[in-house]
Amino acid sequence: MARVVVDVMPKPEILDPQGKAVLGALPRLGFSGVTDVRQGKRFELEIDGEITDEVLAEIDKVAESLLSNPVIENYEVHVEDRSVAEIAAEAGR
Amino acid sequence: MARVVVDVMPKPEILDPQGKAVLGALPRLGFSGVTDVRQGKRFELEIDGEITDEVLAEIDKVAESLLSNPVIENYEVHVEDRSVAEIAAEAGR
Amino acid sequence: MARVVVDVMPKPEILDPQGKAVLGALPRLGFSGVTDVRQGKRFELEIDGEITDEVLAEIDKVAESLLSNPVIENYEVHVEDRSVAEIAAEAGR
Amino acid sequence: MARVVVDVMPKPEILDPQGKAVLGALPRLGFSGVTDVRQGKRFELEIDGEITDEVLAEIDKVAESLLSNPVIENYEVHVEDRSVAEIAAEAGR
Repeated sequence: MARVVVDVMPKPEILDPQGKAVLGALPRLGFSGVTDVRQGKRFELEIDGEITDEVLAEIDKVAESLLSNPVIENYEVHVEDRSVAEIAAEAGR
Repeated sequence: MARVVVDVMPKPEILDPQGKAVLGALPRLGFSGVTDVRQGKRFELEIDGEITDEVLAEIDKVAESLLSNPVIENYEVHVEDRSVAEIAAEAGR
Repeated sequence: MARVVVDVMPKPEILDPQGKAVLGALPRLGFSGVTDVRQGKRFELEIDGEITDEVLAEIDKVAESLLSNPVIENYEVHVEDRSVAEIAAEAGR
Repeated sequence: MARVVVDVMPKPEILDPQGKAVLGALPRLGFSGVTDVRQGKRFELEIDGEITDEVLAEIDKVAESLLSNPVIENYEVHVEDRSVAEIAAEAGR
């Protein structure tokens, strides 16, 4: 089974209230080294079959038309071997 | 300026209604190669100064206590050179 | 055109990192009267035709199976005359 | 304990990919009466003390500056007796 990840983030010029809330809450955790936080979305898509250039082009269209709003968000598509769940499992979490 | 990314995903055994809605909407776009979709969150943190092991350990604590709910979500922390906005700009989007 | 709203909130016993981030950021805005914040989702559904008990029963099923994860979230379905956009317009925002 | 709800919705002229995904997934559930779906956020704030006009004015400022992005979202603030969790409990869910 192959996996493709689509990351969607608010564009830099768009105010991001959720990122701002996280940034505002950090000092109370005693952590002061962060100057900005942006919150976006991550989609993990399981693909049936080989990931060809054609498949990636299709997922690019899905990212643009269904997973993001191109007026206010940027997106990025890439193949990824391991899911966050698998990475967390390896880290013993 | 250094950048650290925290990816947060619903655990595999947790039902993910938003991912399911995306999966259900894909056939209408004429795209049938996707067998599963999971939707999570991506945080891009701008860090003031060098990213040392100590900084990463702090961000790991932030990820566990503020950015995720460890009972229902997995997270993963990594350093990343480029933001999604920068990647999109390079791709001419 | 009739409108039905589905509100989805994390169950009280479920940790809500996003609500916690908002709560943690409030003191910096000089606002100290809030003791807890929970963040959930609000869906506004436009319905074609009359809203009968049968329609509401169908939407209840949609809320349970597509809009929420009943293990970690509660939901509530109600008819609502005005959308948030309409209320904001009336308030001159 | 008093409760104030802040509802935040994408403005009508803003494309809402998450609402669109839900709308696209509905026919597969055999439900065809919905013509549009918009997905926003609902915040439940627990307030310490009485909810005066002054408190509501403060929460309005919080809604505008921390909970929403006024360029792309509308918000609405109102007092609410019961949380979604309490309503769900009464409904026996």
